[in-house]
Amino acid sequence: MKSNLLSNIFNPADLRLLDQTQLPQVAQELRQFIIDVVSVKEGHLGASLGVIELTIALHYVFNTPEDLLVWDVGHQAYGHKILTERRENFHTNRQIGGISGFPKRSESSYDAFGVGHSSTSISAALGMAIASQLKGERDKQHIAVIGDASIASGMAFEGLNHAGVTDANILVILNDNAIGIDPSVGALKKYLTAVKNGKNPKQNNMIKSLNFDYSGPIDGHDLPALVKELNRLKKIKGPKFLHIVTTKGKGLQQAEENQVVYHAPGKFDAATGEIHLKSEENLPPKYQDVFGLTVLDLAKKNNKIIGITPAMPSGSSLKFMMEEIPERAFDVGIAEQHAVTLAAGMATQGMVVFCNIYSTFLQRAYDQVIHDVALQNLPVIFCLDRAGLVGEDGATHHGVFDIAYLRLIPNMIVYAPMNEIALQNILYTAQLGLENPIAIRYPRGRGVLPNWQVANFGHYECIEIGVANQLKEGSKFAVLSTGTIGNNVALAIKECSNADEIAHYDFCFVKPLDYNVLNEIFMKFKSIITIEDGVISGGFGSAILEFAAANNFSNKITILGIPDAFIEHGTVNQLQQLCKLDVKSLVNLFSNH
Amino acid sequence: MKSNLLSNIFNPADLRLLDQTQLPQVAQELRQFIIDVVSVKEGHLGASLGVIELTIALHYVFNTPEDLLVWDVGHQAYGHKILTERRENFHTNRQIGGISGFPKRSESSYDAFGVGHSSTSISAALGMAIASQLKGERDKQHIAVIGDASIASGMAFEGLNHAGVTDANILVILNDNAIGIDPSVGALKKYLTAVKNGKNPKQNNMIKSLNFDYSGPIDGHDLPALVKELNRLKKIKGPKFLHIVTTKGKGLQQAEENQVVYHAPGKFDAATGEIHLKSEENLPPKYQDVFGLTVLDLAKKNNKIIGITPAMPSGSSLKFMMEEIPERAFDVGIAEQHAVTLAAGMATQGMVVFCNIYSTFLQRAYDQVIHDVALQNLPVIFCLDRAGLVGEDGATHHGVFDIAYLRLIPNMIVYAPMNEIALQNILYTAQLGLENPIAIRYPRGRGVLPNWQVANFGHYECIEIGVANQLKEGSKFAVLSTGTIGNNVALAIKECSNADEIAHYDFCFVKPLDYNVLNEIFMKFKSIITIEDGVISGGFGSAILEFAAANNFSNKITILGIPDAFIEHGTVNQLQQLCKLDVKSLVNLFSNH
Repeated sequence: MKSNLLSNIFNPADLRLLDQTQLPQVAQELRQFIIDVVSVKEGHLGASLGVIELTIALHYVFNTPEDLLVWDVGHQAYGHKILTERRENFHTNRQIGGISGFPKRSESSYDAFGVGHSSTSISAALGMAIASQLKGERDKQHIAVIGDASIASGMAFEGLNHAGVTDANILVILNDNAIGIDPSVGALKKYLTAVKNGKNPKQNNMIKSLNFDYSGPIDGHDLPALVKELNRLKKIKGPKFLHIVTTKGKGLQQAEENQVVYHAPGKFDAATGEIHLKSEENLPPKYQDVFGLTVLDLAKKNNKIIGITPAMPSGSSLKFMMEEIPERAFDVGIAEQHAVTLAAGMATQGMVVFCNIYSTFLQRAYDQVIHDVALQNLPVIFCLDRAGLVGEDGATHHGVFDIAYLRLIPNMIVYAPMNEIALQNILYTAQLGLENPIAIRYPRGRGVLPNWQVANFGHYECIEIGVANQLKEGSKFAVLSTGTIGNNVALAIKECSNADEIAHYDFCFVKPLDYNVLNEIFMKFKSIITIEDGVISGGFGSAILEFAAANNFSNKITILGIPDAFIEHGTVNQLQQLCKLDVKSLVNLFSNH
Repeated sequence: MKSNLLSNIFNPADLRLLDQTQLPQVAQELRQFIIDVVSVKEGHLGASLGVIELTIALHYVFNTPEDLLVWDVGHQAYGHKILTERRENFHTNRQIGGISGFPKRSESSYDAFGVGHSSTSISAALGMAIASQLKGERDKQHIAVIGDASIASGMAFEGLNHAGVTDANILVILNDNAIGIDPSVGALKKYLTAVKNGKNPKQNNMIKSLNFDYSGPIDGHDLPALVKELNRLKKIKGPKFLHIVTTKGKGLQQAEENQVVYHAPGKFDAATGEIHLKSEENLPPKYQDVFGLTVLDLAKKNNKIIGITPAMPSGSSLKFMMEEIPERAFDVGIAEQHAVTLAAGMATQGMVVFCNIYSTFLQRAYDQVIHDVALQNLPVIFCLDRAGLVGEDGATHHGVFDIAYLRLIPNMIVYAPMNEIALQNILYTAQLGLENPIAIRYPRGRGVLPNWQVANFGHYECIEIGVANQLKEGSKFAVLSTGTIGNNVALAIKECSNADEIAHYDFCFVKPLDYNVLNEIFMKFKSIITIEDGVISGGFGSAILEFAAANNFSNKITILGIPDAFIEHGTVNQLQQLCKLDVKSLVNLFSNH
């Protein structure tokens, strides 16, 4: 290999000093740098490998950071970060205090817009482009890079629909690799595939229908072609659209061949690509698998059951049902709004619909939950994976608002299981037929019961709606927890010398609250502590306060939860410490209470 | 005129007994019936007049209610309601206890899906169609009728994108009249207009790109053509799309000529179409006009100001700025998600963006508010019109969740002005440059200051962020109100014989709360009453409870607000009575407190 070019690139100005013929070498070095670091430090791999050439071409051709570059979602922005003053910090990626796994405005002036959730880039870049127009910055460029899975989301369409009637300087680059985290779906994907295969005449292209100057499809790994085309587009005013075709995981054979797994493969061998598998023996199951396997089991017996996921078949583990009962399990793509109202439509016809959406992404369908489901009191079963603190994905992905934003909706049942068995049993209970919609929230990662599958799979018990569980008696004060954070409480109590004083209740139902048990608690204990892995403002603790106020109780109530701030990335345990929800903090609190 | 046909039609079965040649007469009678009732009882006019022929053709050709018919938004469903067992109740439209202004499942089996918010029909109908497939109901028909303004919203695109890869029996009918409430906008509208004008070859139609069987455009007022085409489409399996062209307000000359005004004209002369204008002299201004005129005034002096509305230029009164400063005022169509992130993009470039969205519709952009604005702490100024109880539009449109769902978002300022001057001054204050995003919520309808424009326009005062106002001293208990409901409190106190005992504070800032004043209040008064025109769960009162708990106050706190139920339609005053927020209820409460 020739001399190391990447090590001399601090920022894109350095890159632009190179001759165009040197760029392929930069690509090779950048690709290797990412593989080397991610193989050890973990993170998102495939997406960034797929846009190495595009990343280099963009920074080579455009005058970043003056020209504004918005990466949709941001999984693919590792190369961008490395070329923009963060090569030396890249090993801190996704670690507490380190750089974020996503572009972030507060981290770098090269990150024109913070991302994490999908399909925001066109709207954001258009806003910037219109602002530049108004400020008279006529040559400024505004670029949105968006994948074929993300562009199929409604929000992206709204952005295109507006951009097409402006003369703003916006360039939308469609990075078409036919996959998001899982393979892309939908009619648009089918159409784009036809375009790539030369089966649709470019002249009557859908994007042209929206008034864009369309070019492509071109090979997104062909650096000279990319540089040439970007240079040409730079001179064209108004909305422009470039369709490039790339391979996710490009340059690492296993990543190209197994794109779903290598989206975020964990630790792997940088030379061979082989993933370092951890032994899963004696580990508790992932909550997502408890969901996926249980729903499959239930669906085999109840043919009214339907499963829906917006683009997370792997992440939600709905894939198990999709494989075995494909006619009743649907991946609708990145379309949370549609997913929810589709579920509502199905529910009107008597189907039992499990609509699985990550907590943070249900924010995308908030109106549909209120207006299409709850208002009509349709018994849709929402399964909110990744509820609570999610760890390394950070501020964009924590599912900490759901308790508060869901409990205010009339008719909704809000349930948070404390463990795998509770999750399994509420799924069973819900499909028996509820009179209301229910939201079941559970966290990312593994549960607490190593023997779950052996001991309990298939043995269901019906859960009584609105009933809390007393887990432990106590003489002095009561701790009311909801969801899996209750396991921290249980562990903490065991470590407390005053354990006898502490009663522990599992308020798995945030709504409806168990008023009977609450009355008993408020009569018996002067002091009550509530704990949740959600925001304090308007959350579970707040519901307990409302109960107390409405019933004239003046007990002392201490509320633990996520404070009124966006929580950054780190391990879940580190973030729990930050919020004083970890076992040690709880021991301290309980011991001195 | 020949014998009255409409009076013998109780439901569609009766309609189907008629000869096809009699349908135009039914259309004429139905149109007249709607005009006669709406001219006296008020309601939405233009949309229903535009689909009279379509409504008749649909119920004539399809086997409703077995075949499932979903009307998008539902403004256009008056003819549908009259033909489906509600002719005799139609005069109770939008009145308390009467029929709803929108299709509603609990009202009729002919209303397959409850609507109100836009662009849900395709997803809902697809859900029904898939359910029917699974149940083996192969001949069942599922029809979504959607306007050209609604189909441009992202959610509709998501529905089409999914439907196109199914073989579900869904018929999407695009009712293309080039207008929603205001004229349609965007690239898709431009494209559809070109199609209508024969400028785009049908063969390469955008809808066909999404894998639909496309037919049209046909004249939506030509009953024989509609009946023929619907009969043809009924026999085709899989996703079908019919593009019809109609005129909003068809059959009433003034309504055709002034479609924005006749969307919901109020009372008018059924014979001449002339609107009965009420004298506006000595009436306080509408809050929307306080917004619209103030923003225009501010924008003239501050060239960083931008206004954005998703399809409500008239309803929000942003139209004033759109007329005078079109380059900085944007109607982006029914695209709340895009509107918010567009605003965020603009804000990154230093623009001062007023993003005006009805409270109930901001639910559509909840994730964008959290993820694109608040997380990046961009000082976007959200103006939430129609906050609180909206009256006759009912359950789908009340803006009662916003306080609760916004105050839980870190970085957000939440402000509710008590009157026109406060609204004007907060708009002024916000554009001076805040460090945070702010949501300003104000109600539908008129304010309380008849002399507002003369006395105050242009005389702005800066509002200190987070400061509450003491409006009245008192000796016994304190009432803390937020927003315009505070005017009910003030009126009630005046009527109370124990007025001296009652202190009144205006907590215009729900967030940040005024901790100084709260400390004073909690020290001075044993009993505190909070009042808001929003849901009690997680709302302003709940924030006060959180403050009290965090600061070890055990004062008695009584929370008034909207109970945990969906509130139906009626006048605002009737609904306030229902929630015990009207002046009389408050007098009773305060007098006996």
